[in-house]
Amino acid sequence: MAKKDQEFVKDITNMDEDFPQWYTDVITKTDLVDYSPVKGFMVIKPYGYAIWENIQAFLDRRFKETGHQNCYFPLLIPESLLNKEKEHVEGFAPEVAWVTHGGSEKLAERLCVRPTSETIICSMYSKWLTSYRELPYLYNQWCSVVRWEKSTRPFLRTSEFLWQEGHTLHETAEEAQAETLQMLAIYKEMAEDLLAIPVVDGRKSDRERFAGAAATYTIEALMHDGKALQSGTSHNLAQHFTKAFDITFQGRTGELEYPHHTSWGASTRLIGGIIMVHGDNRGLVLPPRVAPTQVVIIPIAQNKEGVLDKAYEIKKELEAKGIRVTLDDDTNYSPGWKFNQYEMKGVPLRLEIGPRDIENNVAMIARRDTLSKDSYSLDNIGDTVKNLLDTVHTDMLERARAHRDSKTFTFKDYEEFKRKMIETPGFAKGMWCGEEECEAKIKEDTGVTIRCIPFVQENLGETCQFCGKPAKHMVYLAKAY
Amino acid sequence: MAKKDQEFVKDITNMDEDFPQWYTDVITKTDLVDYSPVKGFMVIKPYGYAIWENIQAFLDRRFKETGHQNCYFPLLIPESLLNKEKEHVEGFAPEVAWVTHGGSEKLAERLCVRPTSETIICSMYSKWLTSYRELPYLYNQWCSVVRWEKSTRPFLRTSEFLWQEGHTLHETAEEAQAETLQMLAIYKEMAEDLLAIPVVDGRKSDRERFAGAAATYTIEALMHDGKALQSGTSHNLAQHFTKAFDITFQGRTGELEYPHHTSWGASTRLIGGIIMVHGDNRGLVLPPRVAPTQVVIIPIAQNKEGVLDKAYEIKKELEAKGIRVTLDDDTNYSPGWKFNQYEMKGVPLRLEIGPRDIENNVAMIARRDTLSKDSYSLDNIGDTVKNLLDTVHTDMLERARAHRDSKTFTFKDYEEFKRKMIETPGFAKGMWCGEEECEAKIKEDTGVTIRCIPFVQENLGETCQFCGKPAKHMVYLAKAY
Repeated sequence: MAKKDQEFVKDITNMDEDFPQWYTDVITKTDLVDYSPVKGFMVIKPYGYAIWENIQAFLDRRFKETGHQNCYFPLLIPESLLNKEKEHVEGFAPEVAWVTHGGSEKLAERLCVRPTSETIICSMYSKWLTSYRELPYLYNQWCSVVRWEKSTRPFLRTSEFLWQEGHTLHETAEEAQAETLQMLAIYKEMAEDLLAIPVVDGRKSDRERFAGAAATYTIEALMHDGKALQSGTSHNLAQHFTKAFDITFQGRTGELEYPHHTSWGASTRLIGGIIMVHGDNRGLVLPPRVAPTQVVIIPIAQNKEGVLDKAYEIKKELEAKGIRVTLDDDTNYSPGWKFNQYEMKGVPLRLEIGPRDIENNVAMIARRDTLSKDSYSLDNIGDTVKNLLDTVHTDMLERARAHRDSKTFTFKDYEEFKRKMIETPGFAKGMWCGEEECEAKIKEDTGVTIRCIPFVQENLGETCQFCGKPAKHMVYLAKAY
Repeated sequence: MAKKDQEFVKDITNMDEDFPQWYTDVITKTDLVDYSPVKGFMVIKPYGYAIWENIQAFLDRRFKETGHQNCYFPLLIPESLLNKEKEHVEGFAPEVAWVTHGGSEKLAERLCVRPTSETIICSMYSKWLTSYRELPYLYNQWCSVVRWEKSTRPFLRTSEFLWQEGHTLHETAEEAQAETLQMLAIYKEMAEDLLAIPVVDGRKSDRERFAGAAATYTIEALMHDGKALQSGTSHNLAQHFTKAFDITFQGRTGELEYPHHTSWGASTRLIGGIIMVHGDNRGLVLPPRVAPTQVVIIPIAQNKEGVLDKAYEIKKELEAKGIRVTLDDDTNYSPGWKFNQYEMKGVPLRLEIGPRDIENNVAMIARRDTLSKDSYSLDNIGDTVKNLLDTVHTDMLERARAHRDSKTFTFKDYEEFKRKMIETPGFAKGMWCGEEECEAKIKEDTGVTIRCIPFVQENLGETCQFCGKPAKHMVYLAKAY
């Protein structure tokens, strides 16, 4: 393996030496994404976009199964609408792009490119809603949003990104809360069942919640370098926006009421999470269920009679099982070159088939996640590969969980917290007083933020480990992307 | 029927009295779309968006079957890029929205919200392409575009619309031309096989072609009121953009060459076409394959034992055949009210099931397109409905074709052309000299434009029927949306 490793060292920076550079190398050399002529805006290339399409398919199916419908609201939002909810405009105004001219004419009112769509959607809901009979409103849209960022990194933080945003209205506070948690649970399911990324689910501190929300819930994942990635959020907006936008309905008693409101979103940032949770020094390691190509078939000595025929026969058999297959029979490249190439691109399984394999009625299958290679009978090869893909998924999820757990620590005091965050960065679990001032000081001292107040609480003590006041919550803390 | 017709007259303007008002009534009362607080921008409501999703699914499948991949390019385009292709910027600059500020800062260079993406995509292609081995590039993106319009109508002409835009590069001119025509053929297939809209396919005159194209091909449909709707276009861009953006590759001989380029798009405007081709005085008539709900099941006397059970059993049977079904068992509304409602919304089939039907092992099925109603055995009801949906599709396509043909006329001279265009508007087929000046005069005199030079040419004479010069092409002319 020494030789091969060296070859990769040429292409991709060692992740343990320079993780940011490793990330940049991986995303560009594997053709996921590219930088555009507009600073901070990315081009999502076909290989990256195909991953997004698989995420979309999973979420869209789950949204529809839970009664949601898609729709589309305008890209541009009048400044006066953005200004209606005070906390919201304070949060977003500093980072929106402003359209001031249409054609050669100056606009009477500036329009912002949507940074998120609560305001424009609420203005329509206010027009539409009349009676409790019409509730709940369960709508979602797939679109791009723009948030002007100074410092950007493809997928993780860009001035434009793709996402979905759900916006729902409910008759009661209980229903809105149930919806908020249901959608967070769907994000968690997506992270674990599709992306093989274990997540901690919980509530954001007030300081970290969405501008205008009563409560924000989040799923937080831990990356290879010990930093956290917020991977999906669901907001209970209570009646903040519905009051600001005067959305009312006639309730069961005949009185006018304000509905309860939620919104929730997940974005192309998830692709960054896949890369940073699973990747290694050879490049991408894609979880099978989200991988554009799940199996690459590479014929060996393909000029020998029968090899290509058999390779295509296997391809057909796998496709009949619903497996996404690429057969690479390009004669310009050697099998060895192809092995490297598809390893770098993170294809979960590589199936090699040559004359001797055919004689023995077997194929060699190499796993990208473990780099192990075994011989499998060609009888029922479709089922074999299908099961193997499930095994790879489960193993990747468990490995990621073990990695996260190994990087999750407790600490006896603030000094130990600070030291560990530098020496062995990861998730810290600690007790916190619940006060914003204390939280702000942690961030100022260390750059670390409270990622969430997890649903699963542990009692680690009675006093805040940062300021000594009585403790209110157990929290997860980390540096974050 | 007299009573029922009257009820509808209350809701929807008679289409033969005031077609524009009929259109407005239909789109708003059937919940397809709504006007937004931003002038000229529409909100696509769930019922309208579900139609778009079905169009997307059809096209996306066909694009992928023909080797295309999806990707995503930035929303915002620097002014300097837009300016690179002269004809293109002249065509689009007057109608783009300009972003001048990011957050509180004025930008060094204005960015336009993409009106179409040739320029930003070509800037990336120029960076990526090196060798003929990498060709063809077969990429597509689904997104929204903004073109500032003074006078707008939902779906037909709005300042923002949803579409797909394909952008391909090829080694040779022949391949680019073949791609251009292939994609037009896919649009035609979509119009006829999915939307039941017959179209005329052909080439645009130079005056009507896309800004920057060598040739634009189009599919043109005729609406109920005799006006044409351009329903999809495919452009052979030759080397206009590839030269302007300095996109080169090393060819087979080792020389640097410019690739040949195409782009093609179809948009939410198609939904306007569906409405105006098939709709009637009761509202929408949706072609079955694109209808969000293909069959609505309405239980009669649903409080009687067994009725709802049977209704749900039928629903399950239809869904097992892949049919999209809604069962409306809302007790707040009478069956009669529901009949009207789903007729207005254009659901292709209504299945009524009541106690007597169950006794006789039948269901009543009413067709939206013909308003006819028949009794069908419940044995194999899934297959029965599936076949009926196909029949409805075929009948709708043929009816639309007969309507179009009945509104297509020839004429002996310019005077007769003008008279017929006023008295019996529709497609005129005539001979044309091919000169832009002549074409401009027709438009100035009559508001009529040359819709296309159809692939299927007929020889209707030797001289231009508008100016008397020698004729070059047979053309279709019409007023257009």
